[in-house]
Amino acid sequence: MRRTIDSIVDEEGLRQRLDRGERLRIKYGVDLTAPDLHLGHAVNLWLMRHLQEHGHKVVFLLGDLTTQVGDPTGKTETRPVLSREAIEANARAFLDQVQIVLNTDPAVFEVRRNSEWFGQMPIPELLGLFSMTTHAQLMARDMFRDRIAAGREIALHELTYPVLQGYDSFAMQSDLTIVGSDQLFNEMMGRQYQQRLGERPQSIITTVITPGLDGGPKQSKSIGNYVALTDTPIDKFGKIMSLADDLIGVWANAYTTLDEAALARIEDGTRSGGLAARDAKLAVAEAVVERYHGPTIAADERTRFLDVFSAGAEPDDIQTVTVPTEALTALNLLELVRPELSQGARRRLLAQGAVRVDGQTVNDPQESLALADGSTVRSGKRSWARIRVNQEP
Amino acid sequence: MRRTIDSIVDEEGLRQRLDRGERLRIKYGVDLTAPDLHLGHAVNLWLMRHLQEHGHKVVFLLGDLTTQVGDPTGKTETRPVLSREAIEANARAFLDQVQIVLNTDPAVFEVRRNSEWFGQMPIPELLGLFSMTTHAQLMARDMFRDRIAAGREIALHELTYPVLQGYDSFAMQSDLTIVGSDQLFNEMMGRQYQQRLGERPQSIITTVITPGLDGGPKQSKSIGNYVALTDTPIDKFGKIMSLADDLIGVWANAYTTLDEAALARIEDGTRSGGLAARDAKLAVAEAVVERYHGPTIAADERTRFLDVFSAGAEPDDIQTVTVPTEALTALNLLELVRPELSQGARRRLLAQGAVRVDGQTVNDPQESLALADGSTVRSGKRSWARIRVNQEP
Repeated sequence: MRRTIDSIVDEEGLRQRLDRGERLRIKYGVDLTAPDLHLGHAVNLWLMRHLQEHGHKVVFLLGDLTTQVGDPTGKTETRPVLSREAIEANARAFLDQVQIVLNTDPAVFEVRRNSEWFGQMPIPELLGLFSMTTHAQLMARDMFRDRIAAGREIALHELTYPVLQGYDSFAMQSDLTIVGSDQLFNEMMGRQYQQRLGERPQSIITTVITPGLDGGPKQSKSIGNYVALTDTPIDKFGKIMSLADDLIGVWANAYTTLDEAALARIEDGTRSGGLAARDAKLAVAEAVVERYHGPTIAADERTRFLDVFSAGAEPDDIQTVTVPTEALTALNLLELVRPELSQGARRRLLAQGAVRVDGQTVNDPQESLALADGSTVRSGKRSWARIRVNQEP
Repeated sequence: MRRTIDSIVDEEGLRQRLDRGERLRIKYGVDLTAPDLHLGHAVNLWLMRHLQEHGHKVVFLLGDLTTQVGDPTGKTETRPVLSREAIEANARAFLDQVQIVLNTDPAVFEVRRNSEWFGQMPIPELLGLFSMTTHAQLMARDMFRDRIAAGREIALHELTYPVLQGYDSFAMQSDLTIVGSDQLFNEMMGRQYQQRLGERPQSIITTVITPGLDGGPKQSKSIGNYVALTDTPIDKFGKIMSLADDLIGVWANAYTTLDEAALARIEDGTRSGGLAARDAKLAVAEAVVERYHGPTIAADERTRFLDVFSAGAEPDDIQTVTVPTEALTALNLLELVRPELSQGARRRLLAQGAVRVDGQTVNDPQESLALADGSTVRSGKRSWARIRVNQEP
């Protein structure tokens, strides 16, 4: 996993703590906007998971109070403030998603909220924290400079956010945090506040940021160029197969645990082009799906993709079918997806195991299905549909 | 008094309120550092006093909470944070000094503290206030720009100060504030916050800032180029007599209520130079002393100054005499100040009324005196001494 590490701040301190057999408290702080964790986030989560397996504890810090401030990281515009209800819903969704990778056993996992320390803090104390940071120091942050250069506004509350995030490290007694390199500034503030307030400063591991599906600088929900941890196996597989050849080696490096020999073969295949490049990409897609869904589903997806590929049906040609919000039976669904067939032909497809919904084979015509926007339906070799759930009454 | 007004923001609104017969709430906000009100501050106080005489109320706002932040106005360096005890002592000293000019009758005078609203405010609410102001807006403030240009630091808490001062106007429902033009930016924030929070914005009167005794941009305690409201009559008179000729007209205009004809005569005298210039200066010194201490003391100081002047004894030649902290009798004092005289000669000086302490004649050899650092002792026409009180045990 070392290959996903970009830099380590205070590596010496980190090594000493590990040598002394300390159980580290690993800060994993999140802003409670609607979560959609993707492979990029998972790079950090897998490193934390690895440390959990050696007995270290991930302290999952819900920034319930700071979310009311809004984190300007990488954003060009000021983020809207969320209601308390929305923040709580996001917190629940976050916990659901992180446990895809992290172990949530209380021995190695703790949940904290920064309202614990900021909720009751008197304003003079907060201003005292502000007094330990200068305007010049904040302006050194790339993101603030970029916004000013672009003539975009920075609201005063956003300027205070690095201080709040820095104090979090002190309050939760962080020993280590693992973040994307765009969070290095804020976490360095953590070291500063820990030191000023008499605590041993945390070490910081920054991880490599890998380009998005479209070659953009990183995966981003707002751009849609990402593979979400909650994506179905078919979507994960298909999205990776859509990667440009020059990114496949980079993704293999960052998002799989394939060994050096396998990575070298992938690089070779990519360079050769043609079927060798396609096979390299298949190996990466399979490795990623295997990491999250196990080897059986990964192999299945590989087979299915090759079927579609050899039949000349491109996933790009998938038709969109709108369905009502009510749960449907498998037969109802086929009536909507395959209106050209007779009812008998639809029943035969089901009986033959030729119908899959979100990659799962459906046999029973009366099986009740839970469909979501973006669900995929395959019926026979050549018919693919993507579902749109009708939100109208 | 109109001649001390520099500009009025929202003059129309102010006129409407006055036409409707509203009793205005006049914000007089102070930072609770050690007070030493001088003639410059008194320009604003006299305007407020005038409005009090028409039934309007001065709301004296003690910035007990914001003092813990420190006001960077006109300061090139970050101000140290004060203890709560020091802040309370300063509050008492402030009240003592403002009542030299203001009427403290509760009908027209109210004391508030900004800890009333900031003391219990939850941090998200404060951050909400911050979100209504942008970094660019704060950077528009001259003083911040100047500090950045000079390579001096601005602490983050200082950057938040205009927001806090702005919110004060809302919380105390200010209708009008009268400030030096260097406070215009912060008080415009008051209008902004009142408007954003649904209140009628205050009008703002800014007053002319008059150069200090040394010709520097303004009177300042740290530079020592000022006439304090608590200065003795002799010190007020003497300091004004030390003014450069080209400032005397400016001071007459700002710090006296002399009419236009008298001001014109002072300008003429100053231009003529020589004794005419000296007489112009005497007229200003007398008018200022009269404003604070009445016509009798003012006339006395004028006579005394002329005595010294004609006798060729310059106040600059005053010797400094150190005395113990204990109260002294008049005779003890003369023993220290005039060691060359016999005890009989000292008693004669007292009996002749030739001894004055801080401008007050002392006759009784056993009179107990309350001396302070800087007290002056005159004994006979040519002997002057300034007292230094020994703080050692």
